[in-house]
Amino acid sequence: MDETLSLVLFSGTDDKLTAAAVLAVGGAAMGRTVNVFLQYWALEAFRADRIRKDHGAAPEAGPEGVSALARATERGKSQHWADLLEQAKLVGEVTVHACALSMDLFEITKDDLDPMVDDVEGVAAFMADATGPIVFI
Amino acid sequence: MDETLSLVLFSGTDDKLTAAAVLAVGGAAMGRTVNVFLQYWALEAFRADRIRKDHGAAPEAGPEGVSALARATERGKSQHWADLLEQAKLVGEVTVHACALSMDLFEITKDDLDPMVDDVEGVAAFMADATGPIVFI
Amino acid sequence: MDETLSLVLFSGTDDKLTAAAVLAVGGAAMGRTVNVFLQYWALEAFRADRIRKDHGAAPEAGPEGVSALARATERGKSQHWADLLEQAKLVGEVTVHACALSMDLFEITKDDLDPMVDDVEGVAAFMADATGPIVFI
Repeated sequence: MDETLSLVLFSGTDDKLTAAAVLAVGGAAMGRTVNVFLQYWALEAFRADRIRKDHGAAPEAGPEGVSALARATERGKSQHWADLLEQAKLVGEVTVHACALSMDLFEITKDDLDPMVDDVEGVAAFMADATGPIVFI
Repeated sequence: MDETLSLVLFSGTDDKLTAAAVLAVGGAAMGRTVNVFLQYWALEAFRADRIRKDHGAAPEAGPEGVSALARATERGKSQHWADLLEQAKLVGEVTVHACALSMDLFEITKDDLDPMVDDVEGVAAFMADATGPIVFI
Repeated sequence: MDETLSLVLFSGTDDKLTAAAVLAVGGAAMGRTVNVFLQYWALEAFRADRIRKDHGAAPEAGPEGVSALARATERGKSQHWADLLEQAKLVGEVTVHACALSMDLFEITKDDLDPMVDDVEGVAAFMADATGPIVFI
């Protein structure tokens, strides 16, 4: 079994980012190396000035889903994905890489991003480390 | 080659659930162990009182896509994903696990879910069994 | 490490198809065998008469995301995903398979598809070759 878990984060909605962070926590808890690669809308969500803002839910959540999530947050059931990911980083070997191509596409610099992002990386470097499952979220 | 196929179902639209069920059937037919993990909107879709209801298509399908799917259903070309998944369970070793965190988030109990769901499981347990590819749908 | 990278393309928006093509390029550059499997809206996007048309962005991109992509295209930063995929095919062992079930569902024949699509394949055959990570996009 290859211990490395590679997560490609593409989507920038809070529900998908939370699902991703939960997988990172689970992987780290099981002693796996976790490599997170940020593309497109997920990269935008990691901007330092937006990371704690409301990023909504996937369009398919519908009005019912959105209010179910709001109720869960009120009951204190929903932890922010950025907190979950920080916990994963404390628990295990979890690194967060910004996709160089997406950085260029959206004219984002490393300074624009939350400090949780460790570095900027090309897709070939990410692929070289992706010796286990690759999950696109 | 690791025979285990781990499917994380997040989306609750009929097109994505059908694509997931097709992969489960294909995996089971090839003799793979298939572990399905239900999160968020996919978990909602497995509620006993909703599983056979219309869950729509991914928003990107557009009006043309939706009518193409409707025509396919009329021609008897589209099997319900719940039937496909039940076939996969008959063919091979396919188990369906509800994500404990999502159950808590949406206040869903095991009794609310279709009997096709085998148990409730935490993400660490799911990850421990995920020795092969992990597919997020 | 299993060198095979299996990409299941489900979504038909230009942002997701570009992300997929980037992973194919990265995989091919690292010497991996890349198998692409086209289902649903991604299959539609590979129709010979539509492949170069505008397929929009994922709904979650939002108006800001759409204009950021438009600006990137104007600056010449965004290559078309079909070009990227053709480059991947030149660089390495990359094959594109249309899902037989989706072909049937949407009444598409091999002649309707762009020549980049190598053949039509069932899900069991795709699964038999999927000895490494499986990425659903």
